Amino acid sequence: MTEKLVLHEYAASGNCYKVRLTAALLGLPLQRREYDIMKGETRTPEFLQNVNANGRIPVLQVGPRFIPESNAACYYLADGSGLIPTDRFDDADMLRWMFWEQYNHEPNIATLRFWTGWVGLDNLSEAQRLQVPAKREGGNAALKLMNDHLKGREWFVADHLSLADICLFAYTHVAGGADFRLEDYPNVSDWIGRIRNQPNFIPMNA
Amino acid sequence: MTEKLVLHEYAASGNCYKVRLTAALLGLPLQRREYDIMKGETRTPEFLQNVNANGRIPVLQVGPRFIPESNAACYYLADGSGLIPTDRFDDADMLRWMFWEQYNHEPNIATLRFWTGWVGLDNLSEAQRLQVPAKREGGNAALKLMNDHLKGREWFVADHLSLADICLFAYTHVAGGADFRLEDYPNVSDWIGRIRNQPNFIPMNA
Repeated sequence: MTEKLVLHEYAASGNCYKVRLTAALLGLPLQRREYDIMKGETRTPEFLQNVNANGRIPVLQVGPRFIPESNAACYYLADGSGLIPTDRFDDADMLRWMFWEQYNHEPNIATLRFWTGWVGLDNLSEAQRLQVPAKREGGNAALKLMNDHLKGREWFVADHLSLADICLFAYTHVAGGADFRLEDYPNVSDWIGRIRNQPNFIPMNA
Repeated sequence: MTEKLVLHEYAASGNCYKVRLTAALLGLPLQRREYDIMKGETRTPEFLQNVNANGRIPVLQVGPRFIPESNAACYYLADGSGLIPTDRFDDADMLRWMFWEQYNHEPNIATLRFWTGWVGLDNLSEAQRLQVPAKREGGNAALKLMNDHLKGREWFVADHLSLADICLFAYTHVAGGADFRLEDYPNVSDWIGRIRNQPNFIPMNA
């Protein structure tokens, strides 16, 4: 990888942490540029024009080019490494968990974490407040699905750590910040411990 | 591809159509098995046990194994074909649009289409009803982002048709069913025409 890598991010975002963790596990140098999403710094005309027209972080900059979407950025970094299975079925199965993460996990667990820790549950709009029970139920369903899948398995796909684990780890290990009880999901808790024990692991606040 | 391919699906779902369209464009034979989601046929104990613990379609069956998540199923089918760029950046950029589709496009446009055409807007819960304006705004923002990106381009990634186009096409071309005005997005309308003109193209109701 000869082109300079820059992560445009908000460090407390699990989506941004995924990209940092992938780079760390692979030993790739990554420059970081912080934006305060609470001040709208990813919705400025400059950001929309030059970094991501979708107004969101993370965005991985590769030389002069940009890759939005956390899981796509992880895929770019890990391409050709042991974090992506070479078997055709396993590669698709890894992507299956990564798409599932963005559709069934993140909108429930990450959104509740953001509403709890950043917005404040007392400050939600009526439309948001009425979504809390469904997001609570959806988040617990996601954790149960993970816990069931991990029964008798160490990793989500094949028999080794892959991007599926890294991308799911990001918001799962901080789900307590959204008042989910990880102790109710022992296989998930054990798997969190295995990821923390990986060589070159970095915590979210590093 | 020597293993038999079976698509577990609900044919009117754009997510299922993506998989059929990918198979058709590649000339791959695909058996189909229909489930009536309105009767809960993907939430039966048998389905959850044998097909997808997440209770959703589509699921691509490859011999004895199963791949849930529409975009992952498309990736499996297209692996090694011209629908997936070989360039590392372009491959990640394609995945970027596919993740964006599942996070910013489908939950707005597909959900409004389902609420409009299947549930009925008069039958929404209060929590759903209050989400309609944000989904309308999010859907139009997604269509605008696509329209802007397609200015001066024929395809979403690189200079050829890829899974990014197929996965975005599925719910975009029927967005009128959710009362989005595609005629306001001329670059999107032109791109829809280019996809319809591809050899082996099949319409959604085929």
